[in-house]
Amino acid sequence: MNLQIVSENKCFDGVQGVYTHNSTTTQCDMTFAVFMPSVSQFIKVPCLWYLSGLTCTHENAMTKAGAQNWAEEFGMAIIFPDTSPRGEGVADDAAYDLGQGAGFYIDATQDPWAQHYQMERYITQDLQKLLVDEFNIEAGAQAITGHSMGGHGALTLGMKHPEIYRSVSAFAPICNPTQSDWGKKQFAAYLGKTDAPEDDATELMKSKGHPNPLLIDVGAKDEFWDLLGTAAFAGAAASRKQDITNRIHSGYDHSYWFISTFIEDHISFHAEALG
Amino acid sequence: MNLQIVSENKCFDGVQGVYTHNSTTTQCDMTFAVFMPSVSQFIKVPCLWYLSGLTCTHENAMTKAGAQNWAEEFGMAIIFPDTSPRGEGVADDAAYDLGQGAGFYIDATQDPWAQHYQMERYITQDLQKLLVDEFNIEAGAQAITGHSMGGHGALTLGMKHPEIYRSVSAFAPICNPTQSDWGKKQFAAYLGKTDAPEDDATELMKSKGHPNPLLIDVGAKDEFWDLLGTAAFAGAAASRKQDITNRIHSGYDHSYWFISTFIEDHISFHAEALG
Repeated sequence: MNLQIVSENKCFDGVQGVYTHNSTTTQCDMTFAVFMPSVSQFIKVPCLWYLSGLTCTHENAMTKAGAQNWAEEFGMAIIFPDTSPRGEGVADDAAYDLGQGAGFYIDATQDPWAQHYQMERYITQDLQKLLVDEFNIEAGAQAITGHSMGGHGALTLGMKHPEIYRSVSAFAPICNPTQSDWGKKQFAAYLGKTDAPEDDATELMKSKGHPNPLLIDVGAKDEFWDLLGTAAFAGAAASRKQDITNRIHSGYDHSYWFISTFIEDHISFHAEALG
Repeated sequence: MNLQIVSENKCFDGVQGVYTHNSTTTQCDMTFAVFMPSVSQFIKVPCLWYLSGLTCTHENAMTKAGAQNWAEEFGMAIIFPDTSPRGEGVADDAAYDLGQGAGFYIDATQDPWAQHYQMERYITQDLQKLLVDEFNIEAGAQAITGHSMGGHGALTLGMKHPEIYRSVSAFAPICNPTQSDWGKKQFAAYLGKTDAPEDDATELMKSKGHPNPLLIDVGAKDEFWDLLGTAAFAGAAASRKQDITNRIHSGYDHSYWFISTFIEDHISFHAEALG
């Protein structure tokens, strides 16, 4: 089987696992983490995809977001994918915000990125199939969230694939990458263009939105506020009367201390949406 | 003021801070973390000292134990000290379990360790005074816990200084270091002897115990079980009829996944004990 166990630890009565597999989509070995709640021993459970931000691997949110307690309580699996292809043969850049650790959850068309940087297809097809095949997950009850670049991923993949992701939320998401230095540089490199409305949450909100309610949390002291496009997305959501809870929290910044504070709300939000 | 802010982040309505100060006891700069719950803006709050294990700094438990949620809920400060003196001029050893990261919460008497490795006095006097002076902490309402080497620290410092630490607990503590490879090597180096009942939790339990109830959690799949001395300590506690809750949890190992699962129980235990 194309799935290897790196580690499995009992946690809140469930199991926090880390695994590797060889992806035919990204053409390299990929690492991901999954928390399976104890009830998954007996029944298929709903799952929440957590997409991480720039520089992160599968590990940051797994260890810092404090999600396992609530995932066990609500009987929900949580999947923590990596943020890009990895390895010596994989194209990279010296900057923290391009190349490895910065896949942006899009499918690159430009050299030298196109061979491995196929993160949308990796998440929505390759890893999707592996998870549903190998773990006791209910294919029809999937939600998606993420932080920063991963919030961009959650919003764009959520709106592009509502048949997979029935519930969508985000923490401090990059909402308008075609208008931000967190977006223009990467889209130019990976896609050869900065005009990519199909990969921009604000543009997707204008053109299609999501059939179900959204939840967005941002800290008012977010040190990257000017890069996020929070206002543009909020305006687009309001204009189409998207069912949404858009919260701005005074005093909170962009860190995992912010995420861990509100992760319970997101897990309970998705649990309710998935029934 | 001999206290410098490294970082402060809002978290669960409280503040997770990291600070440095120059310790006259360890004769070097020391880093520590403190979580202050939001209610500490208005009143002095009880506090819990969390002593970490081998190789850890102030950071591991701060980020991985998931304590802040419950500290805010119970209105309790949590202090995460470092596990040893640090720095270029501080004696060290190539092994992970001696020197920097392995202070064992004792006061060294032997060269080259004696100059800086004064961790019992550092915790119980130097950092103690700084915390009570500079943070809104109730000096008469202090508890102590810890993990592994830090569990040894919590039990020994708790029993030696019950006037400071009114409530004591531990996660997978090293309970009988004078009989363990986690203990004999370090006591020989730092103290010049392995016969040190005054720094051994099982011996202290035999000789004095603690005036208030204790709480001990250990995982049955703890990969370091044979080094911990769990049975010796349990026997000593039972023999003196120490008020204690001694729990062994099937399936759990020595990791932070084990700690984060049970940290709520420890914080609520200490909150109740401190009134």
